[in-house]
Amino acid sequence: MCRWLAYLGNPIYLEELIYKPKHSLIDQSLAARTSETTTNGDGFGVGWYGNRVTPGVYRNIQPAWNDNNLKDLAAQIASPLFLAHVRAATSTAVQQTNCHPFRYDKWLFVHNGVIDNFKHIKRDLALAIAPDLYPFIEGSTDSEIMFYLALTFGLADDPVNALEMMVGFIEQVSQDNGGTTSIQMTLGISEGKRLIAVRYSTIGQSRTLYCSKNWRACQELNPECDIFSENARLVVSEPLTDLTDDWEEVPESTAIIIQSDHTVTQSFQPRSFQ
Amino acid sequence: MCRWLAYLGNPIYLEELIYKPKHSLIDQSLAARTSETTTNGDGFGVGWYGNRVTPGVYRNIQPAWNDNNLKDLAAQIASPLFLAHVRAATSTAVQQTNCHPFRYDKWLFVHNGVIDNFKHIKRDLALAIAPDLYPFIEGSTDSEIMFYLALTFGLADDPVNALEMMVGFIEQVSQDNGGTTSIQMTLGISEGKRLIAVRYSTIGQSRTLYCSKNWRACQELNPECDIFSENARLVVSEPLTDLTDDWEEVPESTAIIIQSDHTVTQSFQPRSFQ
Amino acid sequence: MCRWLAYLGNPIYLEELIYKPKHSLIDQSLAARTSETTTNGDGFGVGWYGNRVTPGVYRNIQPAWNDNNLKDLAAQIASPLFLAHVRAATSTAVQQTNCHPFRYDKWLFVHNGVIDNFKHIKRDLALAIAPDLYPFIEGSTDSEIMFYLALTFGLADDPVNALEMMVGFIEQVSQDNGGTTSIQMTLGISEGKRLIAVRYSTIGQSRTLYCSKNWRACQELNPECDIFSENARLVVSEPLTDLTDDWEEVPESTAIIIQSDHTVTQSFQPRSFQ
Amino acid sequence: MCRWLAYLGNPIYLEELIYKPKHSLIDQSLAARTSETTTNGDGFGVGWYGNRVTPGVYRNIQPAWNDNNLKDLAAQIASPLFLAHVRAATSTAVQQTNCHPFRYDKWLFVHNGVIDNFKHIKRDLALAIAPDLYPFIEGSTDSEIMFYLALTFGLADDPVNALEMMVGFIEQVSQDNGGTTSIQMTLGISEGKRLIAVRYSTIGQSRTLYCSKNWRACQELNPECDIFSENARLVVSEPLTDLTDDWEEVPESTAIIIQSDHTVTQSFQPRSFQ
Repeated sequence: MCRWLAYLGNPIYLEELIYKPKHSLIDQSLAARTSETTTNGDGFGVGWYGNRVTPGVYRNIQPAWNDNNLKDLAAQIASPLFLAHVRAATSTAVQQTNCHPFRYDKWLFVHNGVIDNFKHIKRDLALAIAPDLYPFIEGSTDSEIMFYLALTFGLADDPVNALEMMVGFIEQVSQDNGGTTSIQMTLGISEGKRLIAVRYSTIGQSRTLYCSKNWRACQELNPECDIFSENARLVVSEPLTDLTDDWEEVPESTAIIIQSDHTVTQSFQPRSFQ
Repeated sequence: MCRWLAYLGNPIYLEELIYKPKHSLIDQSLAARTSETTTNGDGFGVGWYGNRVTPGVYRNIQPAWNDNNLKDLAAQIASPLFLAHVRAATSTAVQQTNCHPFRYDKWLFVHNGVIDNFKHIKRDLALAIAPDLYPFIEGSTDSEIMFYLALTFGLADDPVNALEMMVGFIEQVSQDNGGTTSIQMTLGISEGKRLIAVRYSTIGQSRTLYCSKNWRACQELNPECDIFSENARLVVSEPLTDLTDDWEEVPESTAIIIQSDHTVTQSFQPRSFQ
Repeated sequence: MCRWLAYLGNPIYLEELIYKPKHSLIDQSLAARTSETTTNGDGFGVGWYGNRVTPGVYRNIQPAWNDNNLKDLAAQIASPLFLAHVRAATSTAVQQTNCHPFRYDKWLFVHNGVIDNFKHIKRDLALAIAPDLYPFIEGSTDSEIMFYLALTFGLADDPVNALEMMVGFIEQVSQDNGGTTSIQMTLGISEGKRLIAVRYSTIGQSRTLYCSKNWRACQELNPECDIFSENARLVVSEPLTDLTDDWEEVPESTAIIIQSDHTVTQSFQPRSFQ
Repeated sequence: MCRWLAYLGNPIYLEELIYKPKHSLIDQSLAARTSETTTNGDGFGVGWYGNRVTPGVYRNIQPAWNDNNLKDLAAQIASPLFLAHVRAATSTAVQQTNCHPFRYDKWLFVHNGVIDNFKHIKRDLALAIAPDLYPFIEGSTDSEIMFYLALTFGLADDPVNALEMMVGFIEQVSQDNGGTTSIQMTLGISEGKRLIAVRYSTIGQSRTLYCSKNWRACQELNPECDIFSENARLVVSEPLTDLTDDWEEVPESTAIIIQSDHTVTQSFQPRSFQ
């Protein structure tokens, strides 16, 4: 299973969160502590918002821990909003187009989890994607299909509602085909202003997801430096350091919408399609 | 546009045809003489039949001309039937799953050409693929879609008929969407016994394709060595050496079925779907 | 043979020079007009000075023309001083550590050319590199050896003199071993303030090198946009557009030192080691 | 630290040992049980002797566990003598030229271990390599330097003696530079007839190495199939299955020379260079 992190706050160099913390994402790519597979070596990706409307994306199929380009880019590029992801492939090819984040227009999307019995229901899911979006699918993962379903259901207009429709639809198709566990996911999504994080699974036993409560949570990662603004917030698949009171686990079936000046936490309920 | 070759005859080392001829496939990857794009540097692939039922496939996204692994494999692996392909990507990603040959069960498939307006009609084409075959699609090319359509239409039972249905279907969908040129293709296909080559385009101006008339055509590639059996036959996108009387251009709208003891040449006519 | 460009001026997005001009470096990677090998598909690299002391470097062994990461980075990263390079390997491996620019401390180094009979004299050249620098050699090219020899001879203190010593030494070793043509080179070098370009070959028939005379030369590359400051200067292996009076060919045996407020052109004479 | 295996016996498909055993080399690349680093994801290589004098070599920088080409090659290629290696880079680049096995002429060489303080003494070691061999060095690892030193000291004439000289020389240079632990190694070497395995470390605490006592040891890896000849022998960094009486640990400071009809075990003693 994959690992990811997402940051919103004052601009910081990517390396501050990707490389420097004690249990950084790079470290997690070699040995994740709370993940089922201990190695996340099947590709890396980072998407960041800079000075242009479209976010930048860098994705590579080499393991993150030996990618010299990534090391340089993380040291040179600063951003107020970015998402990074290390992949442990389940059963699809290791190729750039299967690496997260996926991007469409201004939107970035990272996913940790799996659609139950994906190969069996992939065609039914793909057919529900809007015909004008279908040609943009480049890879073969369940994650990318989830992203394009969400876009089809109106991600740009009402993100959480579109995600709830996406999950409801997948659960419906899965159950129609005899599936029971249906979907497992934590999601990180942004359009450049809001950072949306979701934790959900059909059976209520979702992968871990943590959210910082305040800027001190970020500060704890690099005690010697003092770089984070008061509104800096971080969401992570697993802690980048030992957990303190400055972190909280995102509850099951929950969506968190983080903006620079406030954060909203709300229940996440798949929409019924019957 | 891509370049490919296919061989059927006595077992020879792959390098005899991939590397050694004066204007070898490796040379063509750097500078194709009759192709519109002069560089075919967007990936390479070779599929060969050995001692096992399933053919082996080696594909790489690096340009063929600097792939040291390929050089070694071509020197070590001998085969009586193989297809090799250098890719010039049109508008899809450079990734292993987009490299030819494509394989399903015992079948190998290489393609040079393009479906007109593919992005626009891709979804309609993909929906016509048999649901049980759909999940095996790994890449994003028009070529792979053509292969799975042919499999859907019965490639395993009556190959040429299935290919004619595939082309007829694509032309129909293309015309329904306002296209006129529809499809451009030369195809190389095998299941381990027959080698099938097709040259066709909707507008009757197909990419070049040449077939050897006899073993001397092979011999001319490497005058100093005497390795080819009398029934050795070769099909190539463009000549590996200067053309002689021992080669013939495959006519427009033609399918050639080569077996170890005889060759059949027949007209290739897309099946109407109206 | 390789192609490169170097820019010093107001900060611009890398894509303005790497992608957008009519005959951009990406275009040159597919079909260089004045180069002996028409394809420069054996790796790409760009080094840029940003907000940190050490410049960033991005290098990739895939052909530049199909590198999606490069496209994104060039659109996101702006810099007042950068060097970019497309490689056509002569006889060494295609690997990241053989891609230009080479970096040591603050210094970047790109090279187009070749050391005559390099394999034969490589050991003699490597032995002359300062023992404390020797372990930093990561690749196997003649270019990297030239860089570390120049560092050994004092590049950081007196760049042009160190380069003249480097060339003089290589010519001496080459001649001691029976060589006559010795060295072919155009060089692009920087430490973050100055941009140094050199054109030289032992036999006085050097690869092409062009330098812009003024900001209009830059402007001609993208007539529709008005982004260059008056002191913007560009050095290129071959023109990115049709040559006008705003460009001049760098003469044989010449070094040009470009700074933000003035440019010095001087004769380049290898130092004798006898 | 790396993992490797070497096989000599009747010809078998590479996959029988690389993929099929319960704790195969592919499995070890994800999670080695007795190794210090649990992930060996920094490249893979296999060298095999086939029908030609020069062995074939396939090396890749992607992790072995997601290399589809490797899966196919291992299923298609059969060999009576091969060496395979998964790499965990210590501090040198992840690139094909740093992957094992290294090849020179008919010789293959794999290594698990490290030269103490290598960067510091690399130049002294490289200078001792025969000048005519020096240009063949392509990568930057300590392992490749060890191989070329052994070739310099007569590997082709008296392999074990040359290896003892190589180790003695490295220990001498290391000690002259203040080192104490000097060298850690298990080696697998062949020229196509003999399979030579060595276990040694300066401080007498070498990495593990196991040798099969008989064909049953091979058989235990795949109980359901019956493919191994009576003289089949296997050497492995760590067991591919649970250890039984059919396996023995190679003692410290020991060289084993395996041939098709007999095996010699002898003491391994570095030669003094003082």
